[in-house]
Amino acid sequence: MAFSPLIDQLVEALRCLPGVGPKSAQRMAFHLLERDREGGLKLAEQLDTAMHGVARCSSCRTLTEQPRCSICDNFKRDRTTICVVETPADVFAFEQSGIYRGLYFVLMGHLSPIDGIGPAEIGVSDLLQRLQEEEIQEVILATNPTVEGEATAYYITEQVKSMGAKVSRIAHGVPLGGELEYVDSGTLAHALNGRRLVD
Amino acid sequence: MAFSPLIDQLVEALRCLPGVGPKSAQRMAFHLLERDREGGLKLAEQLDTAMHGVARCSSCRTLTEQPRCSICDNFKRDRTTICVVETPADVFAFEQSGIYRGLYFVLMGHLSPIDGIGPAEIGVSDLLQRLQEEEIQEVILATNPTVEGEATAYYITEQVKSMGAKVSRIAHGVPLGGELEYVDSGTLAHALNGRRLVD
Repeated sequence: MAFSPLIDQLVEALRCLPGVGPKSAQRMAFHLLERDREGGLKLAEQLDTAMHGVARCSSCRTLTEQPRCSICDNFKRDRTTICVVETPADVFAFEQSGIYRGLYFVLMGHLSPIDGIGPAEIGVSDLLQRLQEEEIQEVILATNPTVEGEATAYYITEQVKSMGAKVSRIAHGVPLGGELEYVDSGTLAHALNGRRLVD
Repeated sequence: MAFSPLIDQLVEALRCLPGVGPKSAQRMAFHLLERDREGGLKLAEQLDTAMHGVARCSSCRTLTEQPRCSICDNFKRDRTTICVVETPADVFAFEQSGIYRGLYFVLMGHLSPIDGIGPAEIGVSDLLQRLQEEEIQEVILATNPTVEGEATAYYITEQVKSMGAKVSRIAHGVPLGGELEYVDSGTLAHALNGRRLVD
């Protein structure tokens, strides 16, 4: 035992947060106890409400407390395009850019047989069902450019193509503001292969 | 609004933790919602219990849920020495070293007139009262070697000396494992001034 039991238990519980080790957890516990009890209580309440209240959108599988999320429920969105991403945070990134007006499908992960995550876990059948039932014309694959993300994109491509829908993959290349000399060779290869004629 | 209201509120509430910005808060919220709801609920419960249950030790002012902390209540400790530190985390650091067997007095901060923290806020009168009532022979000042910590140590020295008790200050100098060439000049000056004859 380091401090009193309640403080020890709080420090231990804080370690469930990603990136929080014993020292940070201790600092967080003392900060809340010494200077921000109101914030701590508020956090306890929000955690409890969110853990119990947040479920998945029945249509796109993202996290939401409604049966369907606000994007799936927004009838001003383009219902002919569906963008497949790995996590709700990816949806947020697209929404912040303001460039995309279609719908989403959130896999909540990527194919990873070694962790027991197969097509069923990432909801591929839900996606195919939506292709059958809705007027979707194009599926944009925006999984991460990692080995698992690419494999997932490849698998979904095969499945979707067999249903006759158009499939596209977002472009990978040199990011804006990036300097060519610091870009890794994999990215450079993508940038070169994905080159477009200037007219 | 970025995500659904409950998720937004959770992200906002997580930002009361020190060192947690918008991106980390978002990552924490999604981690808990996607992968560790049990941990999230446990954290909510511990936060609630600790925020309501933890108060100050009536003797040394450290954070504890008992009326007196386990150190003040331990009658095997040396009751003639009292070590003055700024925070409960400092007590923990001393306890981990296992080198100190006396009692503590936790200021819960340092003198900082600009923030309205005077002698009353750091409990100097409680310390002086303990000197009167208990058989304390030595007060060891272990405030931080910062401007505020030094000022606090100086103030307490004056007060304690006027009551006839012995006052000492922990040594400041080159830390073990530190390389001399990387040590700042303030620390070097302390190390030189605090030199001891080798016999």
